[in-house]
Amino acid sequence: MNAPEKLPLFTLSAWSAEQLANVEQALSCWVVSPIDTPAPAGLGDAMRYAVLDGGKRLRPLLVMAACEASNGNAHAALRAACAVELIHAYSLVHDDMPCMDNDVLRRGKPTVHVKFGQAQALLAGDALQALAFEFLTPDDGSVEVATQARLCRMLAQAAGFQGMAGGQAIDLASVGKPLSSEQLHAMHRLKTGALLQASVMMGAACGAIPLAAQTALRDYGATVGLAFQVVDDILDVTADSATLGKTAGKDAAQDKPTFVSLMGLQASKNYAQQLLAQALASLEASGLQNTHALQALADMLVNRHH
Amino acid sequence: MNAPEKLPLFTLSAWSAEQLANVEQALSCWVVSPIDTPAPAGLGDAMRYAVLDGGKRLRPLLVMAACEASNGNAHAALRAACAVELIHAYSLVHDDMPCMDNDVLRRGKPTVHVKFGQAQALLAGDALQALAFEFLTPDDGSVEVATQARLCRMLAQAAGFQGMAGGQAIDLASVGKPLSSEQLHAMHRLKTGALLQASVMMGAACGAIPLAAQTALRDYGATVGLAFQVVDDILDVTADSATLGKTAGKDAAQDKPTFVSLMGLQASKNYAQQLLAQALASLEASGLQNTHALQALADMLVNRHH
Repeated sequence: MNAPEKLPLFTLSAWSAEQLANVEQALSCWVVSPIDTPAPAGLGDAMRYAVLDGGKRLRPLLVMAACEASNGNAHAALRAACAVELIHAYSLVHDDMPCMDNDVLRRGKPTVHVKFGQAQALLAGDALQALAFEFLTPDDGSVEVATQARLCRMLAQAAGFQGMAGGQAIDLASVGKPLSSEQLHAMHRLKTGALLQASVMMGAACGAIPLAAQTALRDYGATVGLAFQVVDDILDVTADSATLGKTAGKDAAQDKPTFVSLMGLQASKNYAQQLLAQALASLEASGLQNTHALQALADMLVNRHH
Repeated sequence: MNAPEKLPLFTLSAWSAEQLANVEQALSCWVVSPIDTPAPAGLGDAMRYAVLDGGKRLRPLLVMAACEASNGNAHAALRAACAVELIHAYSLVHDDMPCMDNDVLRRGKPTVHVKFGQAQALLAGDALQALAFEFLTPDDGSVEVATQARLCRMLAQAAGFQGMAGGQAIDLASVGKPLSSEQLHAMHRLKTGALLQASVMMGAACGAIPLAAQTALRDYGATVGLAFQVVDDILDVTADSATLGKTAGKDAAQDKPTFVSLMGLQASKNYAQQLLAQALASLEASGLQNTHALQALADMLVNRHH
């Protein structure tokens, strides 16, 4: 009896390793390459420090996975993946500054302002945001101009006052105040949800999928974005700083409202699993074939330990 | 004998008034309109405070003038004009912060961080940068996607590490150090020159002019950008704070290298006039017909008193 023909198996670890190799190489080449385009007066060093050699790269993986599901332009998606990561990286640099969260440890290393000074950290964050839009608008014909314009629009909206920056403002204003479940959801939908959702939608925008599939991916992105924050809140109380690579227990110490403080630990864990099921249902509803990576990412994201 | 037929006369004051009315109205409508798109938790107020009701709007005027000379899409130019102004406004908000220039007075009013706190100022600046790219990428068909992508590319490059942010980094690193004339030029080419030049080039990108004309306008933009800084340095020693609407004499007090400290006052004044002549020669060389506004702006910029 013959052995059955081997099917190509999908594993998240193998898929991620391949994607991350491309993303890391692209970031390393494109973020102010010290050879081709030296950035002046230490600015390039601060920018590279903020971006390279660290981070889970969750957002780039979501972009690449959504592009794959949409059978899109992989080069456009790689640019989008890096651009989203730059926005994420700049937001961490600015968030960590003394006038915001005043954090000294990030990804197990001193934060940018600790290492380079506050003024350089401020500038590096600003320059990273601009660089994200440079990544999206190459002048070499590799990405259609309509896609470039669309990606810029999506990223700008997700990063700005109706997205990440708006969420930060609510977060700032809510320290020490009781928030309703609705207010907490609204804050996180902007603060972390908008950019995670945009990652999915930008990946999809590198292809051409039906409107119904776009809507399903938008739902997936929103659900995954919310689940990410619920799990973050859980890990803030259950993991230690060494595992997280950042200061654990900070939210409680700063009296910040979290899903755990609002719902309790066990209910938060149940909620995260519920959201996972919901995200997978959205993928099912999309009608897209190649959603293995998006499925596995949602699972990893909810069941991660750091 | 009949009176000669009246020719339409160009005056900068009438032209500027018309352009500024449009720019102010657009900024007021589009910068986080409190009615249509409320920004959360005071962020919208800080953004509007940073942008509205102040500023010479030099960059928007350059965009509109270059669009006019290029016979371009005036709506695209209006969006570009506002986007450039948002980048300028965000840079002022961040520059004024305690970790940078620590300035408390801007356009005769308390700076954003004095009025709203440092965290909100940081976020408002970040959100203004993102909003600039939203302005450039409307989803309503009013601006060709190729133009959108091109404008985003130009603005991102001018704002980032190869432009404004890079120049700030050099500026930071140069306080109290002697700079050569070449180094001082390099710093200002990035710090203020890049965005002023981009204003001209973005206006031109709203039309379709020959390559030679583009090159001539690029030269005009570079020269005008440099002249602007030379005149700024002159005014820092010759004007008072009330006239400037910001703290006068700061450069000397902080021991910052300036054109005046390097060349002396009279030589700086001569240099500014030389640059004006050079800018006008570039316009002549462009072969474009309708450069009245660009001519008059260069003249105003060099011969201004505040």
